[in-house]
Amino acid sequence: MHYFSFKKNNLYCENIKVQDLVDEFGTPLYIYSEKTILEHFIKLRNAFSKLKPLICYSVKANSNLSVLNLLTSAGAGLDIVSGGELYRAKKVKCQPGKIVYASVGKTDREIKDAIKYGIFMFNIESIPELERIAVIAKKLKKKVRVALRFNPDVEPGTHAYITTGKKETKFGMDIQTVERIFLNRNNYPYLKVEGLHMHIGSQITKAEPFIKALRKAKKLLSDLEKENIKLKYLNIGGGLGIVYDKEKPQTAKEFASKIIPLISGLKLKLVLEPGRFIMGNAGILATKVIYIKKTPKKRFVVVDAAMNDLARPSLYEAYHKIVPATKTKAKKDKRLADVVGPICESADFLGKSRKLDVDEGQVIAIMGTGAYGFSMSSNYNSRPRTAEVLVKNKKARLIRKRENYKDLVAKEIIT
Amino acid sequence: MHYFSFKKNNLYCENIKVQDLVDEFGTPLYIYSEKTILEHFIKLRNAFSKLKPLICYSVKANSNLSVLNLLTSAGAGLDIVSGGELYRAKKVKCQPGKIVYASVGKTDREIKDAIKYGIFMFNIESIPELERIAVIAKKLKKKVRVALRFNPDVEPGTHAYITTGKKETKFGMDIQTVERIFLNRNNYPYLKVEGLHMHIGSQITKAEPFIKALRKAKKLLSDLEKENIKLKYLNIGGGLGIVYDKEKPQTAKEFASKIIPLISGLKLKLVLEPGRFIMGNAGILATKVIYIKKTPKKRFVVVDAAMNDLARPSLYEAYHKIVPATKTKAKKDKRLADVVGPICESADFLGKSRKLDVDEGQVIAIMGTGAYGFSMSSNYNSRPRTAEVLVKNKKARLIRKRENYKDLVAKEIIT
Repeated sequence: MHYFSFKKNNLYCENIKVQDLVDEFGTPLYIYSEKTILEHFIKLRNAFSKLKPLICYSVKANSNLSVLNLLTSAGAGLDIVSGGELYRAKKVKCQPGKIVYASVGKTDREIKDAIKYGIFMFNIESIPELERIAVIAKKLKKKVRVALRFNPDVEPGTHAYITTGKKETKFGMDIQTVERIFLNRNNYPYLKVEGLHMHIGSQITKAEPFIKALRKAKKLLSDLEKENIKLKYLNIGGGLGIVYDKEKPQTAKEFASKIIPLISGLKLKLVLEPGRFIMGNAGILATKVIYIKKTPKKRFVVVDAAMNDLARPSLYEAYHKIVPATKTKAKKDKRLADVVGPICESADFLGKSRKLDVDEGQVIAIMGTGAYGFSMSSNYNSRPRTAEVLVKNKKARLIRKRENYKDLVAKEIIT
Repeated sequence: MHYFSFKKNNLYCENIKVQDLVDEFGTPLYIYSEKTILEHFIKLRNAFSKLKPLICYSVKANSNLSVLNLLTSAGAGLDIVSGGELYRAKKVKCQPGKIVYASVGKTDREIKDAIKYGIFMFNIESIPELERIAVIAKKLKKKVRVALRFNPDVEPGTHAYITTGKKETKFGMDIQTVERIFLNRNNYPYLKVEGLHMHIGSQITKAEPFIKALRKAKKLLSDLEKENIKLKYLNIGGGLGIVYDKEKPQTAKEFASKIIPLISGLKLKLVLEPGRFIMGNAGILATKVIYIKKTPKKRFVVVDAAMNDLARPSLYEAYHKIVPATKTKAKKDKRLADVVGPICESADFLGKSRKLDVDEGQVIAIMGTGAYGFSMSSNYNSRPRTAEVLVKNKKARLIRKRENYKDLVAKEIIT
């Protein structure tokens, strides 16, 4: 569900023509719909309302400050993975008590900064990390809350690169290790070891993998209870899939209806970490056709966005729907087209074998690029990064200025 | 060949310890060897000295201004692929007459800027582009030199993502189209259609694909000569492979010895576009071990560099040798290790199944990352980009300052 739709022949974001936005802000351009973002957040909150969960938006999906501000103002917390994301959380004045911090590679400085800000909880990925945090907490004389991330070894049915809950991945700890730490949690006087965390991957369309992982979690929790060890928090991560192509992902409601019965008896505060679910379909990348190139073998629609702007197609072979921003009477061509950017490698494609009748100069929209779009973008081929706009009804606000050539070299020194 | 080597137990870049550089500039850190860069350039120049080629360094491989300045001062021209790279070329005052410009998606503004600067030649990738340049040249009342890029449809034996000379790729034009344009070149009064260009891919370790493509080029040239059409320039692109692992790539000399006989009779000025060949082995990425994480299934060396700093392993499944910067008596572990970064996805790895005995806090070097390393880096997970240093003998110069958290949000506007 999202608020990008055609009215007559024009694609709109909420109540503004995409073409008008492009005329004002140029291309390539990331365009986000505020209503879509908020509705996704509210849907999830409502679906789980019975449990009053802490919903921490996963900053890495789209870390623009205005997006964070919008969500935290609506009541969301933030799920961060780096010192840079902590800095962003501070910038939008996110309440420290609503920040959870996961990452297999937290550095000393990052840990210190997060403790000083008073974040709600660290998700612990390894024993060395646990011990590092214990030492730093002691030095700072602060009691620090942690959740242990357990790796449930389940197959989430998504791309290997975004699978995170299999035992061969770098994430979390095996269940025996986690149990042992809980049993010995009094060894860490500066840590409140009172949460259990899991996150099995991203773009997961079915409830089964979550259920499997949760069953393993419940077994652990009941084993611990026998030892009189009671936890307070259960963080089931993120990973809810969205529609990119023909997926039929579970709705928030369906997901909640399967998860709630499993955990409502546990008397644990639930934490959720949605990212793609909130932002994925809330954004598009608008780009202009530079050339239509016809070769004996293929037809190419060459556009002014490229793999540096949107890495998902080349990195994950991800599919994004592509539509013209304005339906015109472009010459029909029976041949399917590859939509490619100007970058000098074959990895630079945005869509392959698409039905797409467009002319040079026309604007097209790459759909479902609100998450892991701008946040993964680079300056490869010395291409300045795009602008970002946030639309609310009939108004658009520039939330990130377009980079220029000067920005590319701002940190460089000619010697 | 490169100037990164061990003296006793320490890895040196030329005559500075990598550990000393890290102590001064922090990690992650890209370190380049000036001597290596220059020697690669000179080797190639010497190998082809008989033909006095114009050697245009491929800016996209590593576009740092100091690297460009070093190479242009040594006599190199530049091979650019975007307006941003043209801007860089101007910054280092590269002679316009030594700049060639290739890209399937040159925009009007980029074409205008390049014509105004008076670049040597455009490599033309399609008929619409040719016609666009003709129109802009006419408007600017400038005679513009172009080479037609032909797609020889040869298999270069490299990764599909960096294969560019097969007919299903977006690059160049088929030979019949190219021939037709040459035959009708008088239709373009503002264009000097006098060059032939090919570029079949990157990291190609054998001469055969080049030879195959060149034979096709020669056939075309002789057909054209029968029609009394004589060209002046032959640009055979770049793509020379280097040693990452166990490759045994041809040397510049071996390559030249096979190519020169094929083209010395043609009376065409030769243009070469090396990138990786010059920079690939001239740089390393130094990174610090944050945690050693042992799981029942695997051992992970978690470092402070990640896929945002070096995209090649996840994007191309590229192999880079990894060595400790200082050989210490780290505990031996029989198990091979995955070297991974802090980023929250399984795509974030720098090396898999490596023999690597290191302790936390130790520095390791990811070798052969001078090309397509920094230039592809991003801020994913809100990670500031690394610093870059250029070493000459015993001295190191900072050529790009490390980004900080403030830089991450400099273009953003909280609304």
